[in-house]
Amino acid sequence: MTQFNETDLTEAVVKSFDSTPNPRAKFLLQELVKSLHDYVSKTGLTFEEWDYAIDFLTRTGQKCTDTRQEFILLSDVLGVSMLVDAVNHRDREGATQTTVLGPFYVGEHKVTAHGTDISPHNQTGEKMFVQSRVTDLKGKPLANVPVDVWHADDDGFYDSQKPNYDEVGASARARFITDNDGRFFFRTILPCSYPIPTDGPVGEMIVQTGRHPMRPAHVHFLVNAKGFEPLITHVFIGGDKYLDSDVVFGVKDDLIAKVEPRNDPEMPDGTKASGTWHLMTYEFHLKPGGGMAPKPLGVRATEPA
Amino acid sequence: MTQFNETDLTEAVVKSFDSTPNPRAKFLLQELVKSLHDYVSKTGLTFEEWDYAIDFLTRTGQKCTDTRQEFILLSDVLGVSMLVDAVNHRDREGATQTTVLGPFYVGEHKVTAHGTDISPHNQTGEKMFVQSRVTDLKGKPLANVPVDVWHADDDGFYDSQKPNYDEVGASARARFITDNDGRFFFRTILPCSYPIPTDGPVGEMIVQTGRHPMRPAHVHFLVNAKGFEPLITHVFIGGDKYLDSDVVFGVKDDLIAKVEPRNDPEMPDGTKASGTWHLMTYEFHLKPGGGMAPKPLGVRATEPA
Repeated sequence: MTQFNETDLTEAVVKSFDSTPNPRAKFLLQELVKSLHDYVSKTGLTFEEWDYAIDFLTRTGQKCTDTRQEFILLSDVLGVSMLVDAVNHRDREGATQTTVLGPFYVGEHKVTAHGTDISPHNQTGEKMFVQSRVTDLKGKPLANVPVDVWHADDDGFYDSQKPNYDEVGASARARFITDNDGRFFFRTILPCSYPIPTDGPVGEMIVQTGRHPMRPAHVHFLVNAKGFEPLITHVFIGGDKYLDSDVVFGVKDDLIAKVEPRNDPEMPDGTKASGTWHLMTYEFHLKPGGGMAPKPLGVRATEPA
Repeated sequence: MTQFNETDLTEAVVKSFDSTPNPRAKFLLQELVKSLHDYVSKTGLTFEEWDYAIDFLTRTGQKCTDTRQEFILLSDVLGVSMLVDAVNHRDREGATQTTVLGPFYVGEHKVTAHGTDISPHNQTGEKMFVQSRVTDLKGKPLANVPVDVWHADDDGFYDSQKPNYDEVGASARARFITDNDGRFFFRTILPCSYPIPTDGPVGEMIVQTGRHPMRPAHVHFLVNAKGFEPLITHVFIGGDKYLDSDVVFGVKDDLIAKVEPRNDPEMPDGTKASGTWHLMTYEFHLKPGGGMAPKPLGVRATEPA
């Protein structure tokens, strides 16, 4: 057949992948072809629109660096990341809910002592004390578990987004190892809701389609215990006005923590406090299993302890 | 709703585009979301596969330069480009068939005198004389029409793919303007079948899936007459062994030319010939209409004459 007409084309392309050695890759590619072709036929996609798509995808790829992943962001704002998360976590009875990894897991998660202030350069943010515990599904504490933590500053940016990242290095980004009772705790500042980056193609799309670019305030956690499924999640700050309309659809009710304002002169570990500070308490319950935790994006990635 | 579960997620993402000001953009995005989500659900896409896709798309974007368009190549080998072409050219009774633009329309289409040898640096290729004519659907010649021509060398590479492109410049790439009888003619070498670039993610996919990366030998033409639809097409060299299995599915029967070997001592324009040369004869019939011809990819693009 030399005549690749509209009627035979899809079949010819599907058939061209018939010799793919890996059966799963073959299935994924043939379904991809059908899905893409179906989209083009159904929408009657014009040349100008195809051209726009080629340019959009190219710019998205070219916006990626060691510390920025614009394609993950695209996947996030189209709800694809959360759906992949959902189809891979269908049975989580009793386990902590998962959510998106996000594009800012870039590295520099150095093991840090409990109680450390991981945001020492921040002068303006309101202080927060985070106390947490990692257990199995029966509540048995899990000791010696590395927990990666990262969150945005009170200006809405992650350390890796800031122009002086190379000098200042990691900030509001660390790794803690749980103690014998499965506990870890640290000090930081209260993160705020923030917009995803709007200086790239993805942000452009959000703005042009009249969506707001905001994520409700949250702290990322990646809990990676041997013999358990790696847990990738956030803990959201209760009361945030964007909880209902997270631009990446990452919120689940169980992940919203009541973060309490406190005026006690000391934090739970005895650190002196002046004025109001906030207390976040959250427990992680891990599901037995295996699997690889994702590697941080950046070249600065440190190996697990 | 804060609970973006598998069951409500797609609806929430579709709804998030409800305020898109442009109705066509809204339709395209909402259908895209449905299509992507349907793909993820149907395939049960794993994290590793999603990760592979993110990395593949990123590398595809990063492989693009002013003279290379890896995303067009991806669209080509998945048959998407040909399908977009097909759905936009459903009614072409009597008009020359269209095919893909391809990723090598990079610029430097300088107006060139009829009869010029556009491949003067090539010492090894077999000589070819191309004679052509541009008419409307009734056979009336169209004068003063710019026709862009480009093709691969006898080593299978386009000028823009060669390491010395910056020094040597355009080769086997030119623009001709039809005379009063709608005719144009030029000399060049006989192109050969060639592989698409296999040093990028797209070529990698072709190799890993056991597809061959070959395109049958052809010459690209872009005919852009005022008052007519721009014609983007190839003329294929009859007899090529890859006509049935073009890696980009670009072949149509009507676009295959019988290229005749000749031993006449003179070519049709009186140029002396020694040994065998090839004669390509092809007429282009344009459909009335409008539309923009695509701009060449590269920074070196020259404006239409």
